[in-house]
Amino acid sequence: MRRVLAVGAHPDDIELGCGGTLLAHSAAGDAVTMLVMTGGENGPGDDAAVVGRRAEQERAARTLGAGLLWGGLRDCTLTPDAATVAVVERALAETDADVVYVHAPDDSHQDHRATAAATLSAARRLSRVLHYQSPSTLTFSPTTFVDVTAYLSGKLAALGAHASQVEMSAMVEPDAVVASARHWGAQARIGYAEAFAPTRMVLDLAPAPRHPVEEIPEAHRLVPAGFPSVAVR
Amino acid sequence: MRRVLAVGAHPDDIELGCGGTLLAHSAAGDAVTMLVMTGGENGPGDDAAVVGRRAEQERAARTLGAGLLWGGLRDCTLTPDAATVAVVERALAETDADVVYVHAPDDSHQDHRATAAATLSAARRLSRVLHYQSPSTLTFSPTTFVDVTAYLSGKLAALGAHASQVEMSAMVEPDAVVASARHWGAQARIGYAEAFAPTRMVLDLAPAPRHPVEEIPEAHRLVPAGFPSVAVR
Amino acid sequence: MRRVLAVGAHPDDIELGCGGTLLAHSAAGDAVTMLVMTGGENGPGDDAAVVGRRAEQERAARTLGAGLLWGGLRDCTLTPDAATVAVVERALAETDADVVYVHAPDDSHQDHRATAAATLSAARRLSRVLHYQSPSTLTFSPTTFVDVTAYLSGKLAALGAHASQVEMSAMVEPDAVVASARHWGAQARIGYAEAFAPTRMVLDLAPAPRHPVEEIPEAHRLVPAGFPSVAVR
Amino acid sequence: MRRVLAVGAHPDDIELGCGGTLLAHSAAGDAVTMLVMTGGENGPGDDAAVVGRRAEQERAARTLGAGLLWGGLRDCTLTPDAATVAVVERALAETDADVVYVHAPDDSHQDHRATAAATLSAARRLSRVLHYQSPSTLTFSPTTFVDVTAYLSGKLAALGAHASQVEMSAMVEPDAVVASARHWGAQARIGYAEAFAPTRMVLDLAPAPRHPVEEIPEAHRLVPAGFPSVAVR
Amino acid sequence: MRRVLAVGAHPDDIELGCGGTLLAHSAAGDAVTMLVMTGGENGPGDDAAVVGRRAEQERAARTLGAGLLWGGLRDCTLTPDAATVAVVERALAETDADVVYVHAPDDSHQDHRATAAATLSAARRLSRVLHYQSPSTLTFSPTTFVDVTAYLSGKLAALGAHASQVEMSAMVEPDAVVASARHWGAQARIGYAEAFAPTRMVLDLAPAPRHPVEEIPEAHRLVPAGFPSVAVR
Amino acid sequence: MRRVLAVGAHPDDIELGCGGTLLAHSAAGDAVTMLVMTGGENGPGDDAAVVGRRAEQERAARTLGAGLLWGGLRDCTLTPDAATVAVVERALAETDADVVYVHAPDDSHQDHRATAAATLSAARRLSRVLHYQSPSTLTFSPTTFVDVTAYLSGKLAALGAHASQVEMSAMVEPDAVVASARHWGAQARIGYAEAFAPTRMVLDLAPAPRHPVEEIPEAHRLVPAGFPSVAVR
Repeated sequence: MRRVLAVGAHPDDIELGCGGTLLAHSAAGDAVTMLVMTGGENGPGDDAAVVGRRAEQERAARTLGAGLLWGGLRDCTLTPDAATVAVVERALAETDADVVYVHAPDDSHQDHRATAAATLSAARRLSRVLHYQSPSTLTFSPTTFVDVTAYLSGKLAALGAHASQVEMSAMVEPDAVVASARHWGAQARIGYAEAFAPTRMVLDLAPAPRHPVEEIPEAHRLVPAGFPSVAVR
Repeated sequence: MRRVLAVGAHPDDIELGCGGTLLAHSAAGDAVTMLVMTGGENGPGDDAAVVGRRAEQERAARTLGAGLLWGGLRDCTLTPDAATVAVVERALAETDADVVYVHAPDDSHQDHRATAAATLSAARRLSRVLHYQSPSTLTFSPTTFVDVTAYLSGKLAALGAHASQVEMSAMVEPDAVVASARHWGAQARIGYAEAFAPTRMVLDLAPAPRHPVEEIPEAHRLVPAGFPSVAVR
Repeated sequence: MRRVLAVGAHPDDIELGCGGTLLAHSAAGDAVTMLVMTGGENGPGDDAAVVGRRAEQERAARTLGAGLLWGGLRDCTLTPDAATVAVVERALAETDADVVYVHAPDDSHQDHRATAAATLSAARRLSRVLHYQSPSTLTFSPTTFVDVTAYLSGKLAALGAHASQVEMSAMVEPDAVVASARHWGAQARIGYAEAFAPTRMVLDLAPAPRHPVEEIPEAHRLVPAGFPSVAVR
Repeated sequence: MRRVLAVGAHPDDIELGCGGTLLAHSAAGDAVTMLVMTGGENGPGDDAAVVGRRAEQERAARTLGAGLLWGGLRDCTLTPDAATVAVVERALAETDADVVYVHAPDDSHQDHRATAAATLSAARRLSRVLHYQSPSTLTFSPTTFVDVTAYLSGKLAALGAHASQVEMSAMVEPDAVVASARHWGAQARIGYAEAFAPTRMVLDLAPAPRHPVEEIPEAHRLVPAGFPSVAVR
Repeated sequence: MRRVLAVGAHPDDIELGCGGTLLAHSAAGDAVTMLVMTGGENGPGDDAAVVGRRAEQERAARTLGAGLLWGGLRDCTLTPDAATVAVVERALAETDADVVYVHAPDDSHQDHRATAAATLSAARRLSRVLHYQSPSTLTFSPTTFVDVTAYLSGKLAALGAHASQVEMSAMVEPDAVVASARHWGAQARIGYAEAFAPTRMVLDLAPAPRHPVEEIPEAHRLVPAGFPSVAVR
Repeated sequence: MRRVLAVGAHPDDIELGCGGTLLAHSAAGDAVTMLVMTGGENGPGDDAAVVGRRAEQERAARTLGAGLLWGGLRDCTLTPDAATVAVVERALAETDADVVYVHAPDDSHQDHRATAAATLSAARRLSRVLHYQSPSTLTFSPTTFVDVTAYLSGKLAALGAHASQVEMSAMVEPDAVVASARHWGAQARIGYAEAFAPTRMVLDLAPAPRHPVEEIPEAHRLVPAGFPSVAVR
């Protein structure tokens, strides 16, 4: 069983980027948590709209079978500084996640860039960090895919929970969501897919217990046992 | 007729990067506007020099047949935050531009990087965003070129208007400007060229009226008409 | 008016890659020619099927308003050698083309790779060479787009002319063709698009007459007039 | 249970590139087959040495718990033509493989390049094709890793079966094998790893049955049911 | 004789990235200086630990035969702004360095990114700027290597001077340091190596005096002598 | 003292790509040899022209202070097969070269591609292999430069020796040669430069004797001494 953390800058970012994949994780019995860094305060409408947006995000999370954490930061003000890193570090500690999904680093929205950079920093010791595409993502060359054919309707339902977010561009009309899933599905030689560019992804092939480093024969060890270790930042 | 906005961090950045192209746009009857984000306050000289630098930039803009907007930000302090994005958004709104030229994103000068990032954010819904090279640009792999053989003298004249900017390095001596134009021209199989790396560039091939999405036969539509739309940031 | 040559390895490759763009060129009054390097001899069926496939390709070309040239090479045997280069050179000479569309160079089908490489060689002195995506294309990072919203039905009709090519994979089911067009359209901030990665693309901004190199003032010329020139291969 | 095919140009290429990963697959109960394209005829020694080299490869395969297929081609003569593609296609048909490992495409050895290209062509409809690194590999930016800490000794044993291959360079001394495994392990935040660059990799998250495309609601289908399909090459 | 400046964000970053190379420079008689931007205030322990860390860094510098400058900035707070650039500019002025080593720009630690960006800005007019790898570096494709076989023990000794930095991850255990040196050594076809990705690196081939630009024959000059020059930022 | 081998497909390719660098090597007392793979049989003119072209190449080599080897292959027929590799291997053996210059691998001319690939294979155990740009080179992102300000006239003189090669394109007019040198010089922050993309480049910093691997303390050795070694291809 995996513990999955999906990180996004604003309400609906995660659903768009990897909603079908989160449904697949839920279906597999994995524990899934969403971390939404801001409340989408710059979206359309007034304070009541922000409150409503939070309720929508909560409904969408339930649709995906996912827990929900709020980062408590403010829309359009994110920078990849130590405070932002700490928000993601807390979520990683709380969920003990071993798989992380987050925006692709090269994105024209500053909040997306900052969220990706802060998550890469916070998850620097994790072996599975994968980047999803947003409509504002710039360069993106995915090599890793999840089959979401069985979960496409669920993804659209989760997006549909964000009713207050009115259409602002052709970039994320629902037909474009379906089209991109089919486009990436054809690339992956399946039906519908979500696409990912991993920073690093350790595959699970065998359930074999890992040999602790200490068990490696001395002849294969690279330095003697007593050598002082070095810190990593 | 196009409406063109060229964005640069400091006086003379735009002329260096795409001055010949702006002359070609002017010659084609396009409306050309330059947005200079800062007043070059860190250049050589005192306050009077800054005032002089503004006058030089105005003269250079006239040479190119271009309007001039000032971003009002301070030299060497730019960051790609919401305020910087808003400066470019205002210029886009004022000019209703449909083609944008701006610094390449990978640049060793922080003001250039911030200007490129903020412009990519502000122009996130435009179909034509192209990046020009500055002397401090790092990686740059241009694929798109404009023939400036007829406009090279004009470009040099526009640069010549910036008389107060004394030589500080071999990077932008006039002979290097001519040499780069010839180098890129040879790459493009023409005489002298300015080189661009597009983030996205929609070509104009046919004057045919676009079919509104509503006219696409239902069988080809990807989602039913009534499905709620999703906001884009 | 442009003279356009589109090059593909097999029947239907060009329609899939840039059929909508060719329709846009035709609509703009450009002269469009297709060069199909092989007869698709390795497709399903017997010799009669090959004959039928040629007839289908001719019908598809008419649908696109394009002329048709056959390279006369044999399916699955292409290599980027001098003979293959010569086939493209003859087509370029016959059509006097100034815009060339061809497969992307990084493709898992050897015929596609060979066609791309031979065309890059044959078109080495042309200023406009753009690569389209095939289902077997590997890396592909397009930056340049053509709006095919008005031409999508026509593209599907041209593909429909290839009736003998039975479905062999999800890679090119018609829904994937539509989906990719919408996916790239969203990337380009328009409706439906075909996507291109240019090797080099000189934009047409102004109709101004080019100054012949001889007219450049002596002070700006890089070498004296009488210096012996050097051959290019 | 997976069916795995690992493809290499010469004896010992596969063990070097992904021997630990194959051991992990075997440990997980997957069916593993190795396809060695040539007999290493250009290695040191005479005909008897070639015979011995085949016996060594068979022993190494047994060490890995893998079946062994020979491509029957000749060392240093590989090209990515239809005949080479057919060799891999036959192995794929025989093993019904759904995961393929092969050399990285950018390699200074022509046999490695040809093997990678032919395998990409033969596996064009498979959803899992991953590239391993050889000592002669040029550019290689892996994102996907397998933990081989428990299998490193087994990998070295499989390499040790190739006793007739004398040392020819520091490139593949055993210490370099161990060092690279540790280097990539540190990149992956684990102990020892083998590194892969996927052309495409569909992850297995959930055992949920895939909905056949026919079950997708008509409203979400991209083209009507009766539209003629298009062949893929 | 070269004047070398190595820049790192925290104590021990420089030793890890290029300690062997600095030893080689020292052995060649070059003047070597280290600039450590912060005091590692976020490392383990209290204020006394920070004081101790400084003493360790001073000891490590002596081990490498290098001078030591402190940037005086605070751990985890670096941004690539004008103040950070100025810190590096002062060190460049003080050392008159003509070779600069610094973190790779794409790194998951914000201090590393900021240090790399600020150094690229400060060193914008230098001809030799090379990037080293840190455990947190993301993309890194080195092409340039230094043979540190003779200096590996010295590098480990310099790292060993940082005794207060306790092990926090497998990323920089000493065996991983040795393994990476051997991995890159195999890539470089030598024993043990440190690996670099240059932003720009001018090779020293001949001691010939450079001809000042004025001596280039007028026929080869690209613009006439009197043309006004242009400032570079 | 270095032993340098420069490899090019046709007469004048080497002079164009790295003629100034070879002059700098000669000035430094290095032994320089040129290997020209073909006789330029497809250039303009008849058999006498080919004979003349050889004489021109010999004159150009003398101008550069370089020895000259002919590959004996035929213009426009090169493939990167074992025979072509053997030609380069013989030249490497004859010259005992430790630095190799050759075409960039991504080039639209098949002879250039084949020459680059064959040289990368032949030089697989050398630590210094650098790629130069030709007019037909496609992607090229140089990071390494040689100052040729003092050698530019000599480079032009060597090119001038190829008098029979008449001008066929703007790509290699002499002014473009000078312009590219100045363009790359500005990138390198010097006057005029030739630009290189290394496959691998080991820098010479210190004259220290290399410790043979055997002297490395057992504790640092990665595998025990007796372990059988593995062949490299």
